[in-house]
Amino acid sequence: MSGMQAVKFCGQCGEKVSLLTPDGDTRNRHVCGACGHIHYLNPKVVCGCIPVWDGRILLCKRAIEPRMGLWTLPAGFMENGETVQHGAARETMEEACAPVTKQRLFGVYNLPRANQVYVMFLAELTGADNFAAGDESLEARLFDESEIPWDKIAFRVIRQTLERYLAERKNGRFSIAVEDVE
Amino acid sequence: MSGMQAVKFCGQCGEKVSLLTPDGDTRNRHVCGACGHIHYLNPKVVCGCIPVWDGRILLCKRAIEPRMGLWTLPAGFMENGETVQHGAARETMEEACAPVTKQRLFGVYNLPRANQVYVMFLAELTGADNFAAGDESLEARLFDESEIPWDKIAFRVIRQTLERYLAERKNGRFSIAVEDVE
Repeated sequence: MSGMQAVKFCGQCGEKVSLLTPDGDTRNRHVCGACGHIHYLNPKVVCGCIPVWDGRILLCKRAIEPRMGLWTLPAGFMENGETVQHGAARETMEEACAPVTKQRLFGVYNLPRANQVYVMFLAELTGADNFAAGDESLEARLFDESEIPWDKIAFRVIRQTLERYLAERKNGRFSIAVEDVE
Repeated sequence: MSGMQAVKFCGQCGEKVSLLTPDGDTRNRHVCGACGHIHYLNPKVVCGCIPVWDGRILLCKRAIEPRMGLWTLPAGFMENGETVQHGAARETMEEACAPVTKQRLFGVYNLPRANQVYVMFLAELTGADNFAAGDESLEARLFDESEIPWDKIAFRVIRQTLERYLAERKNGRFSIAVEDVE
């Protein structure tokens, strides 16, 4: 599921590929020596939510690698055929069994080294008990601001998302930002 | 360069793949019958700009398929290792030889049937003459609102972007929207 994938064989004909710059291109691509098919590798979109109920934030404790045992906002790879909102809601359902409403775009996060773009939404839960640990989570729990386990957050992008969310919440006004995560 | 790719052979070992739902997954994936490698297909990000100079909008006449000969905003597939802003600026340089400044997020556009997400930025050109047709363009030209060739716009997402841009410009205030394009 990593953003980096090496292609060794052609997905169209099964022969070996070579790394070279096609005519009219400016980058090395994996090109098939037999049929000429060019394999483009592009960044993946990760969609997620900041699910909130009565001021508390829903976090999930990861049951899978990477960062098993650490806490995260529900988020995961966008699938073909869906929208960014749908992907964010689906991931929240899968990881926290939680339906969400009132999705609003909160941020676009560049992770150029991981070849990923996170698209994060504000969202509301539908009840104080309408969540549970999904298959990829050991636990799902609502956290007051003072309870957030800052030393056990799984990913920098999630920490950065939570930090701005809490800072902006104090002003009662949320922006939509494009941020880099290094 | 299409969002739809069929995988027939394994990129890791070159053997045939089958379409099946891996354990713990909910979707059919192309899985290698020999080494078990799972080939995930995910939406691609297309980044672009609305480059403006003195109220006029820069459009490019496409020199390549699809939609050769029709007009578009500069936009193209985001590459590994870059940010969405960088991708949008790079595409504007490639297609219109135009450096841009003051990029601001304008919209995220879902194209679920094409397996694409467009990320479009407002941007300013650096001079009235600082653009030209790039390799993928037959022509690059600044258009007043009244001159925009609405019947010759290459893609619906570009039409939708231009329409909201012009509508919001009248109010002197731009929003950041997530829109579906069908």
